[in-house]
Amino acid sequence: VNDISKPLIAALKGQRVDPPPVWLMRQAGRYLPEYRAVREQAGGFLNLCYDPEKAAEVTLQPLHRYGFDAAILFSDILVIPHALGQNVTFEAGEGPRLDPIRDNAGLARLSTDRLHESLGPIYGTVERVAAGLPEGAALIGFAGAPWTVATYMVEGSGSRDYPNAKSWALGDPDGFQVLVDLLVDATAEYLIRQVEAGAEALQLFDTWAGVLPKHAFDRFSAAPIVEIARRVKDVHPNIPVIAFPRGAALYLPELARMPEIDAIGIDYATDPVWAARELQPHATVQGNFDPILLLAGGDELERRAREIVEALSGGPHIFNLGHGILPQTPLEHVERLIAAVRG
Amino acid sequence: VNDISKPLIAALKGQRVDPPPVWLMRQAGRYLPEYRAVREQAGGFLNLCYDPEKAAEVTLQPLHRYGFDAAILFSDILVIPHALGQNVTFEAGEGPRLDPIRDNAGLARLSTDRLHESLGPIYGTVERVAAGLPEGAALIGFAGAPWTVATYMVEGSGSRDYPNAKSWALGDPDGFQVLVDLLVDATAEYLIRQVEAGAEALQLFDTWAGVLPKHAFDRFSAAPIVEIARRVKDVHPNIPVIAFPRGAALYLPELARMPEIDAIGIDYATDPVWAARELQPHATVQGNFDPILLLAGGDELERRAREIVEALSGGPHIFNLGHGILPQTPLEHVERLIAAVRG
Repeated sequence: VNDISKPLIAALKGQRVDPPPVWLMRQAGRYLPEYRAVREQAGGFLNLCYDPEKAAEVTLQPLHRYGFDAAILFSDILVIPHALGQNVTFEAGEGPRLDPIRDNAGLARLSTDRLHESLGPIYGTVERVAAGLPEGAALIGFAGAPWTVATYMVEGSGSRDYPNAKSWALGDPDGFQVLVDLLVDATAEYLIRQVEAGAEALQLFDTWAGVLPKHAFDRFSAAPIVEIARRVKDVHPNIPVIAFPRGAALYLPELARMPEIDAIGIDYATDPVWAARELQPHATVQGNFDPILLLAGGDELERRAREIVEALSGGPHIFNLGHGILPQTPLEHVERLIAAVRG
Repeated sequence: VNDISKPLIAALKGQRVDPPPVWLMRQAGRYLPEYRAVREQAGGFLNLCYDPEKAAEVTLQPLHRYGFDAAILFSDILVIPHALGQNVTFEAGEGPRLDPIRDNAGLARLSTDRLHESLGPIYGTVERVAAGLPEGAALIGFAGAPWTVATYMVEGSGSRDYPNAKSWALGDPDGFQVLVDLLVDATAEYLIRQVEAGAEALQLFDTWAGVLPKHAFDRFSAAPIVEIARRVKDVHPNIPVIAFPRGAALYLPELARMPEIDAIGIDYATDPVWAARELQPHATVQGNFDPILLLAGGDELERRAREIVEALSGGPHIFNLGHGILPQTPLEHVERLIAAVRG
């Protein structure tokens, strides 16, 4: 599980790797024609997540095309609420829809009883990808962090300001903690199984961490992430954990100092020069090319990619985007980006 | 114009004021029944912005109800694109719609020729408010910062990730600079006239500053804000300027050190303890209560309000929200908040 000859694992273990290993968030996604073909066959997004053969295929597609240094499990953060018994659907072009949970009665309907039964196909995907990995590439498992998963569970969909989830979290923090604790339990168990199925590193995505005041960030973003990492490491001490609380740059130095956290993802708005100074002494830094510039192309693409590599060249760095790759991204821009990174 | 006996002006001039002056972003807004009544009479949002009598009335309504320490001009950031010749409409419940500008041909249709003619009614509002201000209250004029105004001009509406504006700004920065320069010219002229009509302080809102990488933030958010402040102060050296680039906490210490910037607005996600340490030595800090907690109420309302007052009590502070007040906010929660701040 800890093959330090793989560039991604070496970087996660604190080594400076030159050129840095590279993968892209949502690299298995709609910008790839081969992905769109498989998704169409699968008949819907959740079907694809729960089909180990097809999910493994799309997980590996970007590695075959581009030679990335890591595969990231193809799945969705909402398989956890689904496994807890919440109704989750994806309408084409609409994003997710959930029956929203707004109170204790809603919480009481959730249960971990059928967790692994529901998530079994995901573990199957991990096993298949692990068996089919190209040489030198590592497999990253992942989950949503409790705060971000909770926003979808409470709002019932993506949302701009998360009024219901934030109202609950800020106005009744002890009540909201019950939901977060349940997510910590389920997510830790889920990730432990991913490691046992072959994941070599884990990433926790806290996409909406940036909407929380400091006191709520500490309690509902950072603390659950650290607790999940601790529980996974109690069982698998050597598994590296990447935390990616988006939009919360100010609070990353504290998180980077936690012994449970091996790497910090930084979003596109975070200065890589600052990250080199404030984060890299304590954790590997992953990021942070702007996916809009990958879409736009032009001379700025190479220039800004080299700028990030340069800024973070003094310590352990994994080159990535600062947010998921956009579906309209031209295939040749991805090639140019990788070439720029690998110099 | 610089009546330091007014608590808001004293705080903007660097004095520690106890209790801190308080006003709320969007305090003249839909949560007030008296506002909704006037807006209905006016027949549409832009009509209200261009009706000096009614706009002055709604500007003063929250001061009459709550005794805030400042009035902020009732207007909209999109009066600038409108004055430059872009078509702007507001559909009820839909947000703004503009004919999007995506290239040099679109830019060529914009002109400052009729700027002051179009904005004349706004200056009329400022004059009326200045004449009707309650004793001790100050009048804040405002404009959108060029980056945020440009996102609307380019996207044609509010948007989640600003793909067109960001593509242009990141992929063709010199081309995008032409639009930003035009906005700097128009906005500086607009704010100079607001001061001449009676505004005692100015705020520049850069609501979408947080989506820019550092190099683009420096060029398209911070630099235009500082340049506008410089031009206004060339004519009116004593006018205090508040900069509020939302979602860009990491870059505020640098902005706070600019001599043109008197105060920095901080959003709800920014730690006030950090702001006291990193910003207050260089600028007055304004903020940063979470409007969701003002909506939610409960014991946490008083607790978190006092926490902010406490954190920023060692230097100049203006109590405010970290984002605009929400339309569903109960009127009595606003009373409780003010009471908590004034102790």
